[in-house]
Amino acid sequence: MLELRLVQGSLLKKVLEAIKDLVNDANFDCSSTGFSLQAMDSSHVALVALLLRSEGFEHYRCDRNISMGMNLNNMSKMLKCSGNDDIITIKADDGSDTVTFMFESPTQDKISDFEMKLMDIDSEHLGIPEAEYHAIVRMPSAEFAKICKDLASIGDTVVISVTKEGVKFSTRGDIGTANIVVRQNTTVDKPEEATIIEMNEPVSLTFALRYMNSFTKATPLSNTVTISLSSELPVVVEYKIAEMGYIRFYLAPKIEEDEDETKPQV
Amino acid sequence: MLELRLVQGSLLKKVLEAIKDLVNDANFDCSSTGFSLQAMDSSHVALVALLLRSEGFEHYRCDRNISMGMNLNNMSKMLKCSGNDDIITIKADDGSDTVTFMFESPTQDKISDFEMKLMDIDSEHLGIPEAEYHAIVRMPSAEFAKICKDLASIGDTVVISVTKEGVKFSTRGDIGTANIVVRQNTTVDKPEEATIIEMNEPVSLTFALRYMNSFTKATPLSNTVTISLSSELPVVVEYKIAEMGYIRFYLAPKIEEDEDETKPQV
Amino acid sequence: MLELRLVQGSLLKKVLEAIKDLVNDANFDCSSTGFSLQAMDSSHVALVALLLRSEGFEHYRCDRNISMGMNLNNMSKMLKCSGNDDIITIKADDGSDTVTFMFESPTQDKISDFEMKLMDIDSEHLGIPEAEYHAIVRMPSAEFAKICKDLASIGDTVVISVTKEGVKFSTRGDIGTANIVVRQNTTVDKPEEATIIEMNEPVSLTFALRYMNSFTKATPLSNTVTISLSSELPVVVEYKIAEMGYIRFYLAPKIEEDEDETKPQV
Repeated sequence: MLELRLVQGSLLKKVLEAIKDLVNDANFDCSSTGFSLQAMDSSHVALVALLLRSEGFEHYRCDRNISMGMNLNNMSKMLKCSGNDDIITIKADDGSDTVTFMFESPTQDKISDFEMKLMDIDSEHLGIPEAEYHAIVRMPSAEFAKICKDLASIGDTVVISVTKEGVKFSTRGDIGTANIVVRQNTTVDKPEEATIIEMNEPVSLTFALRYMNSFTKATPLSNTVTISLSSELPVVVEYKIAEMGYIRFYLAPKIEEDEDETKPQV
Repeated sequence: MLELRLVQGSLLKKVLEAIKDLVNDANFDCSSTGFSLQAMDSSHVALVALLLRSEGFEHYRCDRNISMGMNLNNMSKMLKCSGNDDIITIKADDGSDTVTFMFESPTQDKISDFEMKLMDIDSEHLGIPEAEYHAIVRMPSAEFAKICKDLASIGDTVVISVTKEGVKFSTRGDIGTANIVVRQNTTVDKPEEATIIEMNEPVSLTFALRYMNSFTKATPLSNTVTISLSSELPVVVEYKIAEMGYIRFYLAPKIEEDEDETKPQV
Repeated sequence: MLELRLVQGSLLKKVLEAIKDLVNDANFDCSSTGFSLQAMDSSHVALVALLLRSEGFEHYRCDRNISMGMNLNNMSKMLKCSGNDDIITIKADDGSDTVTFMFESPTQDKISDFEMKLMDIDSEHLGIPEAEYHAIVRMPSAEFAKICKDLASIGDTVVISVTKEGVKFSTRGDIGTANIVVRQNTTVDKPEEATIIEMNEPVSLTFALRYMNSFTKATPLSNTVTISLSSELPVVVEYKIAEMGYIRFYLAPKIEEDEDETKPQV
């Protein structure tokens, strides 16, 4: 039996909004340690990894490891029916082919049960090794989202270049070119407004803006985003989920001289 | 001669927004007692009844009973040109084939006259007898609107079941099922947030969500909605219009085993 | 070399929003006195004239007069990438076929350079003589915008009639007629809410609402609009740009009995 009670239910809504456009169907894996998901996007270019640790739930019961295949669009439709202050409980009986989302209003005057059919989804779980990155940029997530959106109005790809002084985002399109430089800045009033650059060596990598803009759908989950760059690895765009876990997006850089989208080498 | 002056003109705008999607053309009936309308929706399934009592107008002159046929979409276009704080006066000369809507800004610095052609519309006025209902539910109108909208993302029909403890709204669709229970609750800070259930006997009836969602366009008119249910009668969904009257929507329940939409037996 | 630094960069964004739907491509003329533009709309019916005086810029360097042809839609795309509090600098090297828009965030932590290709655009500069008008109406720009929008839901043209008492805007369409009278009113709390009418002789002129509604895109630039009317001249609809200059729109009246759109006789 599975019963996961999340007091801040709106968080689960935001998680679904962050990934449903990228991934159609996916297995949610539930074990004693947490509720997680790993899935390629539908064009098999980007990878999403989600973790919500068991400690973040008010009540967490998972008798045996299970993998529940869900259509994320349908799941999102159901979660959208919850109120923003509702407590959400995910429930499944052993061997059942359905999952139930229960929404409780703060006053307990309104209780909703949404039952969804599960799907059989083939998936292979990729081991993602811990890696050393050439540069790690932490910046306000809203700033990163605006930059990706702005550049997409000019071009299709973004070159992210990191030096000790700052990080540069560049693009080129039919109507012209754009370069946006964000400087390292740690002396801000609010820590979440800082831009912090850890750099082992300078790096300059090219990515498809379409995917970057998909990743920024996770912006409401966190005030900051962490971008980990290495010339031999897919970039990791990570949004922490307060006290619970994270969403990480992986995307392989585009090879210079080769404008085709390449699969990530995770 | 007809001259009806409504200080809170925005109320008339809201009335039109509430019914114009359901009804295309309708006769407004004007008598010494008030300004009213009764009309079937264009597919002849639901019935709307509006009453604005003469006492609610600052000035109310109606020399003889008249029935004015209007295209509600055109009337809505004109009313949308009024400011939210404008005073609206409805004027018609005896025997005229036009009606005039006059809008006065609060400062009287802007006066608008919109003249609309009247239409000849055949209509029969249905007598709606006072009836006993098995159950009457009064609840916050925004809550009811959210429930109807949420359920429509899952299924096409809603089963409304009333017991002493609460009212349950259920649906079923391709992606799963949904049950929303709202409990009786009379101990709230604000009376308009209460959910009050008067029940003579339990009742469970099925309705087309499409119509319910049309009815909830009247939500801006009132903080509360009253739903009167009986197994032998169309449901009545009523929005009171403060100190003036009401909008009531009537819809026949769907017969079990028969998924076709049936006409209301008013 | 050209370098124009505008502290209130959002103003340039608003200017582009005001004219980009009316004019596709235009020459911006830069001289020691200011940054200006004069262009016919794409159907050659209306004329736009923009002036931003050099004194309004924090830094203004223009070594020699130049005319820079720009696609306003592309320019708008780039300016939309600036933050609302950003300082915008327009830069061009002598003989270059590109222009650069530089955006500096208030904290200087984010610096963006957008480079756009210039175009060769044929244009003739029309001399617009100072003229005497029969009537000049100054009114709140939001009020004028609402009137033009409201009337366009009823008809295609607006008759603007000025008397000493006020200004009347009228239209006629399939669903009826509309008359909106705005009275002269100089005794208001805030000067920008006044409606002031200077009249030498009564005037009544007809204009295409489609163009009037395009002109009102400039509403965010100024709280007031000035409408100058004369039976022998195109109307001038002017929005002042605080301490810098103006946008003026010119449109020839429609001739009675002739419903075709006529070119302005500027």
